[in-house]
Amino acid sequence: MSENEVIIQADDLESYVSALFEKTGMNQEDAAYCAQSLVQTNLWGIDSHGVLRAPIYIERLVSKAMNPAPNIQKVRGFGALEVLDGDDGMGFVVGRAAMKRAIELAELHGVSAVGVNRSNHFGAAALFAKMATQKGMIGIVMTNVIPNVVAPGGSKPITGNNPIAIGVPTFKEFPFMLDISLSNVAGGKLLLASKKGEQIPLDWATDKNGRPTSDPDAAFAGFLLPVGGHKGLGLSYVVDILSGLITGGVYQHAMKSMYKHRDEPSLTSHFMIVINPLALMSREEMESRMADFYQTIKASPMWDDSREMMLPGEIEYRTAVARRTNGIPVPINLYNDLVELGEKLGVTPKLAA
Amino acid sequence: MSENEVIIQADDLESYVSALFEKTGMNQEDAAYCAQSLVQTNLWGIDSHGVLRAPIYIERLVSKAMNPAPNIQKVRGFGALEVLDGDDGMGFVVGRAAMKRAIELAELHGVSAVGVNRSNHFGAAALFAKMATQKGMIGIVMTNVIPNVVAPGGSKPITGNNPIAIGVPTFKEFPFMLDISLSNVAGGKLLLASKKGEQIPLDWATDKNGRPTSDPDAAFAGFLLPVGGHKGLGLSYVVDILSGLITGGVYQHAMKSMYKHRDEPSLTSHFMIVINPLALMSREEMESRMADFYQTIKASPMWDDSREMMLPGEIEYRTAVARRTNGIPVPINLYNDLVELGEKLGVTPKLAA
Repeated sequence: MSENEVIIQADDLESYVSALFEKTGMNQEDAAYCAQSLVQTNLWGIDSHGVLRAPIYIERLVSKAMNPAPNIQKVRGFGALEVLDGDDGMGFVVGRAAMKRAIELAELHGVSAVGVNRSNHFGAAALFAKMATQKGMIGIVMTNVIPNVVAPGGSKPITGNNPIAIGVPTFKEFPFMLDISLSNVAGGKLLLASKKGEQIPLDWATDKNGRPTSDPDAAFAGFLLPVGGHKGLGLSYVVDILSGLITGGVYQHAMKSMYKHRDEPSLTSHFMIVINPLALMSREEMESRMADFYQTIKASPMWDDSREMMLPGEIEYRTAVARRTNGIPVPINLYNDLVELGEKLGVTPKLAA
Repeated sequence: MSENEVIIQADDLESYVSALFEKTGMNQEDAAYCAQSLVQTNLWGIDSHGVLRAPIYIERLVSKAMNPAPNIQKVRGFGALEVLDGDDGMGFVVGRAAMKRAIELAELHGVSAVGVNRSNHFGAAALFAKMATQKGMIGIVMTNVIPNVVAPGGSKPITGNNPIAIGVPTFKEFPFMLDISLSNVAGGKLLLASKKGEQIPLDWATDKNGRPTSDPDAAFAGFLLPVGGHKGLGLSYVVDILSGLITGGVYQHAMKSMYKHRDEPSLTSHFMIVINPLALMSREEMESRMADFYQTIKASPMWDDSREMMLPGEIEYRTAVARRTNGIPVPINLYNDLVELGEKLGVTPKLAA
């Protein structure tokens, strides 16, 4: 524990954040779910999408930019394909409803797709992909975000770094879980390079005119570049088309950043595909084949003996085991914000640290 | 036209290659389809997956490594999710059968997924994604390939550069079409750098021990690196899991390279997802929204005025328009191989050039 952070036990953090959400008018169950999801994300070590975001979410729920009690309902589709209207609800609640429905439909049809429009920021996409793996299914989860990625040669952002998470059940300690954004790196890496005074590779980001830059500060004022050039760019278009365009939602520049438009719904869209492998083989066969797949990867030799071949989701699993025991490091500024928020909303007791 | 190539009209090339395929025992319709697909790929400018591959396909059909008359049938699944057994058929024929079935199922259920095992190399994945767009549907097509990609830090290839194609209907001159492999670059780029005597970026490829290299010749003897490091690596695992693992097919090292195991079935697997946007909105609405999406991209400014913002599929479309008029450039060595093959199989008349 450094002097810049406090260590908080996961359960304490979860019950406190849940109480915060309840004060916004969310029902107890939704509040507990949102808090549990944020803390789960911190446990995975993905602190950028954990309780760091609680203050902005709560501000937006209090101002009614996000609807604390959304009426989420089907508005389009038939058979195994549906679109839900998120009613400007908290993204976690809307995302959970969509994945729940996608799982039901995949049970009936073997595969399903559920789109959502009029949602908001839903945190780590892996949260929803994991719901599928817990039912023995494969979950593919994507969301569009406000454009922050520039096409190579372009001078304005044209698409978001739209994340995709894909989870596959292993029936072991942790599922296969890939959760990636479609920019080459996230903004946090630019910040880190800037703090260290390091240059960045030219394919990470651009200056404010879209020109590739090795200066992390220029990059921070500019835009992100897509992973793999036209490959990530094209995939990002696909996520926007599936999430926003075919669902009747909004896409490209019609979304609203929750930071720049704090008092307005974000109009975020999500898209989820669920595939039920247990419609194709027994649980035992699936488990055995995934174990074999993992074993082959794990047994593959490294030229760098200091490194270990990691499986998608393994780092997050290990971090969660450690943080469940040792607690979650929370930056002191964030801790103070959370305490202040609790005082304002009348939450007791104070957040333990 | 250089002295190293001959120009052949698309129709001439197609009818000649179709006649070659017929001589292997393929029925006329399948032969014509395979020839049309290869020439279509050349028209798009993707010469690596065009008639260049005809000689190896035909050799394998003649030797019965590939079954010229496969009995493709459903072996697993229900509802909107099915797995077909490809009966060691030519990949183009098996892939077409799978996409045809996926389109039927998406018409019934709104979304569908069809996996295939016991197939072979199926050429450009875009061929099958395009079938979906021609029906007003979104096609997602993937295939596993023999491991040729090394995980960062690893010393042996652990997964293939498994391609993914995604097509979206626009109802205009050309569909949205993304067709990417999951290595950072294809082997052809290493060859080109070697010919030019240029160094390559360290994230392209490794030497034969898995160590990143800037020497294209060392890279050519080594392995490819995944696009975006762990991002492309994870996506490649997903393609292998969906194509080979959950379909009851083979995955990772159990496939057989068609070049190294010329006389054996490749045991390739494919996976196709089809989403029917016309189950969610009218054709007019879909067309208008895609036109708006494209217009926004096209209107986005460039800092480099010499470049044009291209849409996924646009370069291939333009190349096809030009090659349909001007003919297809065929390397002289390939031309000679095709002529010789025709003489051996008794195809007349000789390929026009």
